[in-house]
Amino acid sequence: MTSRYKITMAYDGTHFAGFQSQPEQRTVQSVLEKAVNKMSKLNEYITIFGSGRTDSGVHALGQVAHFDFPHDVPADSMLRGLNSMLPLDIEIVDCQIVPETFHARYEAHAKRYMYRVSRSWFIDPFKRLYTGHYKYPLDVERIKQAMPDLVGTHDFSSFVASGSQARSHVRTIYEATVEDDPANNELVFEFCGNGFLYNQVRIMVATLLEIGNARRPIHDFLRLYDVKDRNQARETAPASGLYLKEVYYGQQAQEIVAKALLQNQGLRSKIDSQIK
Amino acid sequence: MTSRYKITMAYDGTHFAGFQSQPEQRTVQSVLEKAVNKMSKLNEYITIFGSGRTDSGVHALGQVAHFDFPHDVPADSMLRGLNSMLPLDIEIVDCQIVPETFHARYEAHAKRYMYRVSRSWFIDPFKRLYTGHYKYPLDVERIKQAMPDLVGTHDFSSFVASGSQARSHVRTIYEATVEDDPANNELVFEFCGNGFLYNQVRIMVATLLEIGNARRPIHDFLRLYDVKDRNQARETAPASGLYLKEVYYGQQAQEIVAKALLQNQGLRSKIDSQIK
Repeated sequence: MTSRYKITMAYDGTHFAGFQSQPEQRTVQSVLEKAVNKMSKLNEYITIFGSGRTDSGVHALGQVAHFDFPHDVPADSMLRGLNSMLPLDIEIVDCQIVPETFHARYEAHAKRYMYRVSRSWFIDPFKRLYTGHYKYPLDVERIKQAMPDLVGTHDFSSFVASGSQARSHVRTIYEATVEDDPANNELVFEFCGNGFLYNQVRIMVATLLEIGNARRPIHDFLRLYDVKDRNQARETAPASGLYLKEVYYGQQAQEIVAKALLQNQGLRSKIDSQIK
Repeated sequence: MTSRYKITMAYDGTHFAGFQSQPEQRTVQSVLEKAVNKMSKLNEYITIFGSGRTDSGVHALGQVAHFDFPHDVPADSMLRGLNSMLPLDIEIVDCQIVPETFHARYEAHAKRYMYRVSRSWFIDPFKRLYTGHYKYPLDVERIKQAMPDLVGTHDFSSFVASGSQARSHVRTIYEATVEDDPANNELVFEFCGNGFLYNQVRIMVATLLEIGNARRPIHDFLRLYDVKDRNQARETAPASGLYLKEVYYGQQAQEIVAKALLQNQGLRSKIDSQIK
């Protein structure tokens, strides 16, 4: 009997060429498919469907994927079996059997990314693979004033890498926060939205750091939405600081949207048009 | 004019074959010597003297070394110059010009090591290179009861790896602590002593974990000191969890010894004989 499994995973992206399978590359998808197909021992190839790509070097704390497995294996045994076969830079943190209507990509209505910026003058050897690095002075208050400009529905054409194949560059951000963490000498950004374009978070972070360093006016995002010109938001923060933290489905996604609506009344009409 | 520089450094030991130079291997010493000699631009080869070896894969938060440099460079410029030339998995965190009587190894009268144990069932991808891993149940109270058995002057012959060339296996531990860190699902050990044998800390940690798992009696250290048999303390905790945290010189080292004496009156005569 075939069952559909939803898996939630963490991975250290350092040695992966991103999530999606590519010829001759070590990707999260190919490593997962290798393990799942080894377990199934059938000729029919089992494909893993992720919630979306993560780029080369980007980490995950809660990436989600699904696959159909031809044997009746309890979810807990699947979790233990996969973890025993997978390399140590990837871990299945949750596994559930879900209805066949569940789809990791099509049903993902919100995603949360985190970006860690290390502020030391020299690069901390223990953070080099797990943070971005910004050694110049930052006025965190300027960044905090800019963050509300990100929330809402905007055309992010100025914040998309040239390789993007997205038909539309309009996306909605439900939440955008920054936490100053002086104990660790870090700034930690979080962005929750209905979807993000290729490199969007990394370009937004680089722009926010330039605002914090007073190289740009505080409300430069408003201008950048208008000009729709990638060349004006030039920098891209490194992949090492970026984490796909959570992917939201069903009820959970609805609650995120509802909360965003409550906190930003003006967004209702804009957000409504974005949600299927 | 030649000056002696004392440098304090952090490194991620993952991609180093330990501290000490070895043919055909990437070691901390060889990477440092390459940078220092490139800066000096002289024919005379400058040697780096470390406080002691760290093994392959072992990390450092405060390893110390010294070298003599033939040009008059301010300590701060030396720090910045070296960091700009060194690879990202090593960082000079402090640099001072010291009298020529200072010697990183001979004057190091105390060292502090930290060992991080991750207690998750599966290995956390972000901790695999930075902790040891123990998935079996641990009664931390048992470990806490065992820790005082480590403090004092003991013959650690049961806790030395076979490759050791030390003439004596007698060492003094001034402090031995364990912190339970449930938020990170870790146990963190610290050991401060006048010196440690090859693999000593890693063998002690493995033995402490077996005590916590009730595979050994709480006070098995006392028996192991007596039997002087490496085969009876079998396991060695992995290098990935071990950090050389601090090396103490002069006044600082004396204070550590004085504090240990105050807290352990009975040790005075034993410790006195260990300190030059």
